[in-house]
Amino acid sequence: MNIVVLCGGVGGAKFLRGVRAHVQATAPRAAITAIVNVGDDMWLTGLRIAPDLDSVMYALAGENDEVRGWGRTGESERVSGELRAYGVGWDWFTLGDLDIGTHLTRTSYLREGLGLTEATRRISSRWDLGVTLLPATDHEVETHVLVEGGSMHFQEWWTRHRAAIPALGFESRGVASAVPAPGVLDAIAAADVILIAPSNPVVSIGPILEIPGIRAALAGASARIIGISPIIAGSVVRGMADACLTAIGVETSATAVALHYGARSAGRLLDGWLVDESDRAAVGVLEAAGIAAKAVPLWMRDVPLSAEIAREALQL
Amino acid sequence: MNIVVLCGGVGGAKFLRGVRAHVQATAPRAAITAIVNVGDDMWLTGLRIAPDLDSVMYALAGENDEVRGWGRTGESERVSGELRAYGVGWDWFTLGDLDIGTHLTRTSYLREGLGLTEATRRISSRWDLGVTLLPATDHEVETHVLVEGGSMHFQEWWTRHRAAIPALGFESRGVASAVPAPGVLDAIAAADVILIAPSNPVVSIGPILEIPGIRAALAGASARIIGISPIIAGSVVRGMADACLTAIGVETSATAVALHYGARSAGRLLDGWLVDESDRAAVGVLEAAGIAAKAVPLWMRDVPLSAEIAREALQL
Repeated sequence: MNIVVLCGGVGGAKFLRGVRAHVQATAPRAAITAIVNVGDDMWLTGLRIAPDLDSVMYALAGENDEVRGWGRTGESERVSGELRAYGVGWDWFTLGDLDIGTHLTRTSYLREGLGLTEATRRISSRWDLGVTLLPATDHEVETHVLVEGGSMHFQEWWTRHRAAIPALGFESRGVASAVPAPGVLDAIAAADVILIAPSNPVVSIGPILEIPGIRAALAGASARIIGISPIIAGSVVRGMADACLTAIGVETSATAVALHYGARSAGRLLDGWLVDESDRAAVGVLEAAGIAAKAVPLWMRDVPLSAEIAREALQL
Repeated sequence: MNIVVLCGGVGGAKFLRGVRAHVQATAPRAAITAIVNVGDDMWLTGLRIAPDLDSVMYALAGENDEVRGWGRTGESERVSGELRAYGVGWDWFTLGDLDIGTHLTRTSYLREGLGLTEATRRISSRWDLGVTLLPATDHEVETHVLVEGGSMHFQEWWTRHRAAIPALGFESRGVASAVPAPGVLDAIAAADVILIAPSNPVVSIGPILEIPGIRAALAGASARIIGISPIIAGSVVRGMADACLTAIGVETSATAVALHYGARSAGRLLDGWLVDESDRAAVGVLEAAGIAAKAVPLWMRDVPLSAEIAREALQL
């Protein structure tokens, strides 16, 4: 069985750990492919940083910092201290030493002329992840946030300003000329099921869907496409997706996000949608809109709970 | 008074500390400009590394590791551990975390389009060095070592193989199209005295002299040009200069190195040459060859001793 998961960073990573646990327990020969958002990627002090790919890789490798919720466990900031002393970089963006090891490795491969997909394959081969990581595209397509009077890189808006500056919209710079990364369209075509992780619909899943060719591939896929709501009882589970949804005029609710993705039967994305038990009332609305829906516990408090969500998604 | 010093890395740094100490004690308004070799520079895992510029900067800043003899004091290797785990880089070339902070800063500036001179100016402005550091050139002119059957980057020959593979010669790749860095020719023209540090004549001073325009500027300078022998009693003071001298057919002796540089009166480099007390016999030979010479203690065991050498050089 081929399982494809579209995802962003930390939320996607949690979900992927559940998918992997479920698969290892029930269908150990199944292949899991994650198509990961690259809209958060950026150049910083000469380093190519890919936060979502790294978050997913660290979490699957068991190297993520569970307490802090992001980055590597056992991290230090010796190099960052020097960058600050030299007055370069962004002092609001933490670059851990172990993390810099990953960025340097990636940058080195890219400077040698490799694509991000091949660089990611080599980097992630350090661990037995049980999941193939594919960036959505090898092109540099970075999300910029439109704000009053201008725009800024997504990371500046998200990390520096904690999404507190009202966003007027989002722009995927360079997306028009981007193409899906090698293996992405094949993975979608060969999938037996396609899952949309409970990642940020606007700045994690959205930028993947914007890459020319991906929506068409999803539309033409023989697999069912099942999403998991990132919204529970009108609140975001983690992150600041509400600020993103508000910016594009979508209510912060499990129903509104599903309708934003739309029913595949109406030429849009979703065959099915999992909502939290507390959003049970959404099921009827979604079914009426042509999206199969089910209410199940959606809090990914630990891997077994995430695995149970994966099971429900695969069943739907 | 304007003092210009041509130098390489660690040996040059020791000498420069002496020059600075002497000047601060006797002529605090004098300006010291170091023209530093860049032949050891290289790209490694996406980082631009400039070992000689950094050695000089760390030593002048008091941040060098006196015990180890190179690199930053209080250094750690968290990032290098990661690079090894990912299987990139050169496992025989140590990249300390603090040092990587410098390399990242330099790389960042270079990627922004700045030249090495301006990047060096910004980086070294972190400390009050009392010496202006100028790379010999902003061009990438890297020393490669010709060996039986091929060639390798100088660092590979020097650091990995400890100069144990017989060198057949040295090549400054790209030197033909290089030009002196901004400020280098002006510094030479405005100098009141030009000192050749007791650095490696072949792979530290040699690559500086090879840059088109620098020899002519030295020849035309109004200042006297005084060198300090890096060879004491037929042995190199530090490093493996003997392997380099042998490769170019020069004996490892204070006299032979001076004659290799040649007398300025004969259209070559030197007006004067300091040898160690133990090489007193060389003085007559050199004077006969048209090079003013003096025998003084040349072991740079501490800053006062180095300052005394600087005093003798300025007096000669």
